[in-house]
Amino acid sequence: MRTVYWQDGKVKMIDQRLLPGEEVIAEFATVAEVARSISEMYVRGAPAIGATAAYGMALAANVSDATDSGDLLNDLRRAKDTLDAARPTAVNLSWATRRLLSLAEEIAASKPSMEGSVADLRSALLAEAEALADEDIQINRRMGYNGAAVVPDGANLLHHCNTGSLATVDFGTALGVIYACHEQGKQIHVWVDETRPRLQGARLTAWELMRAEVPMHLIADNAAGHLMRTGQVDVVVFGADRVAANGDVANKIGTYKIAVVARENGIPVYCVAPTSTVDLDLPDGDHIPIEERGDEEVVEIGARSIAPANVPVYNPAFDITPNRYVTGIVTEEGICYPPFKQSLRTAVEKGRAAIEAERAERE
Amino acid sequence: MRTVYWQDGKVKMIDQRLLPGEEVIAEFATVAEVARSISEMYVRGAPAIGATAAYGMALAANVSDATDSGDLLNDLRRAKDTLDAARPTAVNLSWATRRLLSLAEEIAASKPSMEGSVADLRSALLAEAEALADEDIQINRRMGYNGAAVVPDGANLLHHCNTGSLATVDFGTALGVIYACHEQGKQIHVWVDETRPRLQGARLTAWELMRAEVPMHLIADNAAGHLMRTGQVDVVVFGADRVAANGDVANKIGTYKIAVVARENGIPVYCVAPTSTVDLDLPDGDHIPIEERGDEEVVEIGARSIAPANVPVYNPAFDITPNRYVTGIVTEEGICYPPFKQSLRTAVEKGRAAIEAERAERE
Repeated sequence: MRTVYWQDGKVKMIDQRLLPGEEVIAEFATVAEVARSISEMYVRGAPAIGATAAYGMALAANVSDATDSGDLLNDLRRAKDTLDAARPTAVNLSWATRRLLSLAEEIAASKPSMEGSVADLRSALLAEAEALADEDIQINRRMGYNGAAVVPDGANLLHHCNTGSLATVDFGTALGVIYACHEQGKQIHVWVDETRPRLQGARLTAWELMRAEVPMHLIADNAAGHLMRTGQVDVVVFGADRVAANGDVANKIGTYKIAVVARENGIPVYCVAPTSTVDLDLPDGDHIPIEERGDEEVVEIGARSIAPANVPVYNPAFDITPNRYVTGIVTEEGICYPPFKQSLRTAVEKGRAAIEAERAERE
Repeated sequence: MRTVYWQDGKVKMIDQRLLPGEEVIAEFATVAEVARSISEMYVRGAPAIGATAAYGMALAANVSDATDSGDLLNDLRRAKDTLDAARPTAVNLSWATRRLLSLAEEIAASKPSMEGSVADLRSALLAEAEALADEDIQINRRMGYNGAAVVPDGANLLHHCNTGSLATVDFGTALGVIYACHEQGKQIHVWVDETRPRLQGARLTAWELMRAEVPMHLIADNAAGHLMRTGQVDVVVFGADRVAANGDVANKIGTYKIAVVARENGIPVYCVAPTSTVDLDLPDGDHIPIEERGDEEVVEIGARSIAPANVPVYNPAFDITPNRYVTGIVTEEGICYPPFKQSLRTAVEKGRAAIEAERAERE
């Protein structure tokens, strides 16, 4: 199952807002529309947002009426601004747009006067977006198997939000660890946090795990503490929207509570995130912007209101889990352990080198 | 606003399942119906359940066709069994039915051969149920003002579930503390946990606080950790369905997570519960039965399904918060502090003496 892809000059994706009730493919033909697909959460999950933004950049090149590479670069810079503004917390978004813009700038600088340079740029950007999306799948598989090494046979895992195929191009981050265990034949069982307010766990993770036939139970987020206190959780896994240089993790609202209660009960806590999620420019989690979303996410479920009319609401979409509550951060380059400042930098550098090597091979 | 009352030989109550959309008074004319009103949660909240069960015992006497006190006592014992089985966790239920049955046994033993003894018993039981309900209101007001003493002016409080007028006969337990602060003119603000799965916070507490014009914001339960970590919560207050002799607290699912995260952040945690909620016969929380409720509470909101069909669900209604996470337990007889074993016993004995004194005065 591929969450987002390029077809016939358009960016196409599963409309995740309609799952599990309906499986609808939505398509977007302009940069503004792709930005809207991110802000309105047709697509969500940091790696999936990154791939979508990369396709958005390829689309910007494709629909641009620029006739020289200088004008095309200007269109790409505008496209990057539009896409980056779609959601503030996930760093993969600007990581992906920067990667495509940098490539375009490199190519333009190296071949300034060539005929057909705009056409070259268009095809190079589409190839880079496809490569980024394909890499995401490979990275997820490597992460999944790296993480599976710390999950014992017979384990009960607690999982928050959706970090599966739907949160990535395919396979997933924290759910990727679960899929890897399942592929290895480990007898595992997953407690699926429903993940209010948007219910990504109830709607998306439950749907994915049932399709994959991984044993699971859906729970209200409030039940996770009881399960941890009574010895029914062996490992906690979740993803990340941004990881600071010191290992503080920004992830879906509610992650922090889980991590604190897990540590209190001696349960290991693994954040599973590709190195593209690590932001070495941010010293710690207090510098990560926290997106606040609309009241209706809390007050309305479907079209039905569950609270009094005009009730005041506060709805932060993410929280910060300080690094002291995190046992390890699973990346495609291995598991990072404390001190995270050092282990994360090493992993990020390896990750960058791998992308460079892969690109060189393509060329 | 009175949650439950006796009128025209029937037990009447607000149907809390329909709030905040509709305000409907439901009425029940048999013991089995009253038990159903508790198990199906027309009424919920430990003190309100206690008062409802007391009226249920008065109803049992009223509708009994017994012609002597021995037969009536048998009917009352059957009624107690039916009512006690309606929900397993709240101890106020069996506390109330035992109180009414004991009174009936005392009266029957002291006046075994009197003419009209059945009629006497009927009126004594109704008077006792009315007294219990009236006491609940008085007890709540005393608890509220006891608790208000530890809430500073300008405080932000975090509140879980509904513990207000609707959870009691009137005024509330933890919400009673908030109402007392408000009556005292303190400038407070309340973060209202929506309290999945049944959304008592979103549906009932938000409704009550908006009516009382107490400043508040509704939040997803997941947001409480972020608020605590970022210094936006000064005091945590919640109720209890049962308190063990050592101060372990059984309360609405999710309470445990809040208490752990509060302690981690140095935020005081107060459980607010009348002495009737304290079960001195239970040494600790591990002996408190935890009710599991139906899947539909998690999977359906209104008539709408929010998860895939046939998803496996685990739905515990309560959790246990060990006493080390509880700063104090606010009762009508004052605030109990650690060591709770001693302070709770003293409070319970004072509470029993107060009921005896009040009954003696009535007679």
